[in-house]
Amino acid sequence: MRDRIKNIFDKVEKTIDAIIIKNSVHPHIDENFFYITGLDKGIFEQTIAILYSDGGADILVSELEAESAKKTDVHIHVYKNKEDQNNIFKKLTTSFKNIGINFDGIVYQDFYQLKKILPDSKFIDVSHAFTESRIIKDECEIENIRKSCKIADAVMEKIPDILHEGIHEYEVAAEIDYIMQRNGAEKPAFETISSFASNTAEPHYTHGDGKLKKGDFALFDFGASFKRYNSDITRTFTFGKAEKRQREMHKTVFEAQKVGFDLIAPGIIAKEVHNAVNSYIDNTKFKGRFIHSTGHSLGLAVHDGPGFTPDSNIELKENMVLTVEPGIYLPDFGGVRIEDDILIKKKGLELLTKSSRELIEI
Amino acid sequence: MRDRIKNIFDKVEKTIDAIIIKNSVHPHIDENFFYITGLDKGIFEQTIAILYSDGGADILVSELEAESAKKTDVHIHVYKNKEDQNNIFKKLTTSFKNIGINFDGIVYQDFYQLKKILPDSKFIDVSHAFTESRIIKDECEIENIRKSCKIADAVMEKIPDILHEGIHEYEVAAEIDYIMQRNGAEKPAFETISSFASNTAEPHYTHGDGKLKKGDFALFDFGASFKRYNSDITRTFTFGKAEKRQREMHKTVFEAQKVGFDLIAPGIIAKEVHNAVNSYIDNTKFKGRFIHSTGHSLGLAVHDGPGFTPDSNIELKENMVLTVEPGIYLPDFGGVRIEDDILIKKKGLELLTKSSRELIEI
Repeated sequence: MRDRIKNIFDKVEKTIDAIIIKNSVHPHIDENFFYITGLDKGIFEQTIAILYSDGGADILVSELEAESAKKTDVHIHVYKNKEDQNNIFKKLTTSFKNIGINFDGIVYQDFYQLKKILPDSKFIDVSHAFTESRIIKDECEIENIRKSCKIADAVMEKIPDILHEGIHEYEVAAEIDYIMQRNGAEKPAFETISSFASNTAEPHYTHGDGKLKKGDFALFDFGASFKRYNSDITRTFTFGKAEKRQREMHKTVFEAQKVGFDLIAPGIIAKEVHNAVNSYIDNTKFKGRFIHSTGHSLGLAVHDGPGFTPDSNIELKENMVLTVEPGIYLPDFGGVRIEDDILIKKKGLELLTKSSRELIEI
Repeated sequence: MRDRIKNIFDKVEKTIDAIIIKNSVHPHIDENFFYITGLDKGIFEQTIAILYSDGGADILVSELEAESAKKTDVHIHVYKNKEDQNNIFKKLTTSFKNIGINFDGIVYQDFYQLKKILPDSKFIDVSHAFTESRIIKDECEIENIRKSCKIADAVMEKIPDILHEGIHEYEVAAEIDYIMQRNGAEKPAFETISSFASNTAEPHYTHGDGKLKKGDFALFDFGASFKRYNSDITRTFTFGKAEKRQREMHKTVFEAQKVGFDLIAPGIIAKEVHNAVNSYIDNTKFKGRFIHSTGHSLGLAVHDGPGFTPDSNIELKENMVLTVEPGIYLPDFGGVRIEDDILIKKKGLELLTKSSRELIEI
């Protein structure tokens, strides 16, 4: 993990004495804490990490998580209560003049308290340094994501066998999560989306009481979390033979995704990928019905940094991992989305999720 | 939801024109957004909510979540991109001089941007108003928590039948989550803890490759999330007949929890409950081995506000929902925790989780 910390410091232009990460309570936990410790178990509410430019770090944990914290090689301080935490913290930081903070990962309350504890220090936003470091995955991260994608593929393969007339959306979601965890995922990467019929037109619908009927779209969007690293895959099936419009929607999304795949390579600007995919759809009868961006970075977070958004000027580089997920949504009718995870290689990309992308009529 | 918003304003002493909630990206989403909209589906990254003292609200959502947002009765503005969001936001807020902000739920980056967009406004911390409102549950919330506790109980009842020699921790976790979701939970309230043997000494251990052996402690800590409302229950079994020390640990925790139950009633100060429970354990041979607080508020968040902590001066009131969860942890040997969810009534409490608390030897 020392290399990760050094790498973060390399991306900070200003001179700083240290970087402080402060977790609040769930859900306001900064994933960067796990990035720099490698800890794959534990919640670490209220934990503080202090990082140094030589790659070292101090972490302040409560007794509750002292056992869990022992699995990292950084220096651990166990505190008994808030006062104790404050005292240890002050001792470690009192000489710091310039302190880096991830403005994206700290709640304002904690930032405000830091300023009170260290009234003479200057706080500098280093969120870009975390983002820039994390967007390029190291070998260990890629390995975890590969494993996580493999689990997602294994689950997707089983879905056609699970579906039957009358099954509820929530029942399929339960099966998906179960198979995922039996295959080695610690948990679902996010709340599994299992939607039928017109519910598929709602991209962030999760699951409900919908019952599967002949002719329905059935859309599944889920991912595995393996050692905190996530996959994210979507397939849209038809239950029974697809009707003409369903087939057209699927084919358009399928082709749009290929437009993205063909373009992605080091040196390309992220928004060019989105614009190409979006233009492809806008040149069909489904103009205006692609209502989200083409993809996001994937890693420790499901939305792990810059993505294929209309305004992203990020240049694609080797070892970035992103999703490519065009969709078409017709309210009251239904939606189609096809989503895969890709690793950017020296030339072009490697597909990390390998489930068939053709329309499957169940 | 109008009553909830009015209630929040009632708790703000200063005069404010509005309260702004700003979600960042997952996991930095402010649960108060769901509290004031009642939306039980959707992620709502980057969403802004503007609340008014008459109970009304405006929300700004992207096209991606426009469908999901329609299920609330507040006023919805759908934006196309960031610029569009900024324009709508400015129009709605430009006349505001004093704005309430939940300092606990906004990342500093977003707060910093707000200050740039509204340079002449004053921002006032209203986090206490959210906390104070949410700590007292309304009827609809209690109903959801009851349902969520009922699901957790149904799962706990099935665990003894699942366990067999050689089963892995992660397999039991998968079964727990599966049964939970088949019983109507949308998802687990948090990553299910399923730990055996000495792993039970690590309170926030989740699950791993541990295999169940005769004589092991087996600890399960999980909860259901139902319409975003959570339960949280823990039981510790022995696999096979308990040995003397295991039995003593369990009995001590069982009695300590009773000390808490007997004390809890409106008018009592939260820390008194923790101190009584802690003193009980400290007067046994397990002195010093209760290494966390006695409980936390439960609701939309698993850690939903003030709890039975050593420094909490909160006065207990009717319709608060909290956990009571003493534990004893002996590193390299194992831990016992018994956790239940309680609703504070006019006199005393009502147990919302009803699984047997006696030692079960499987």
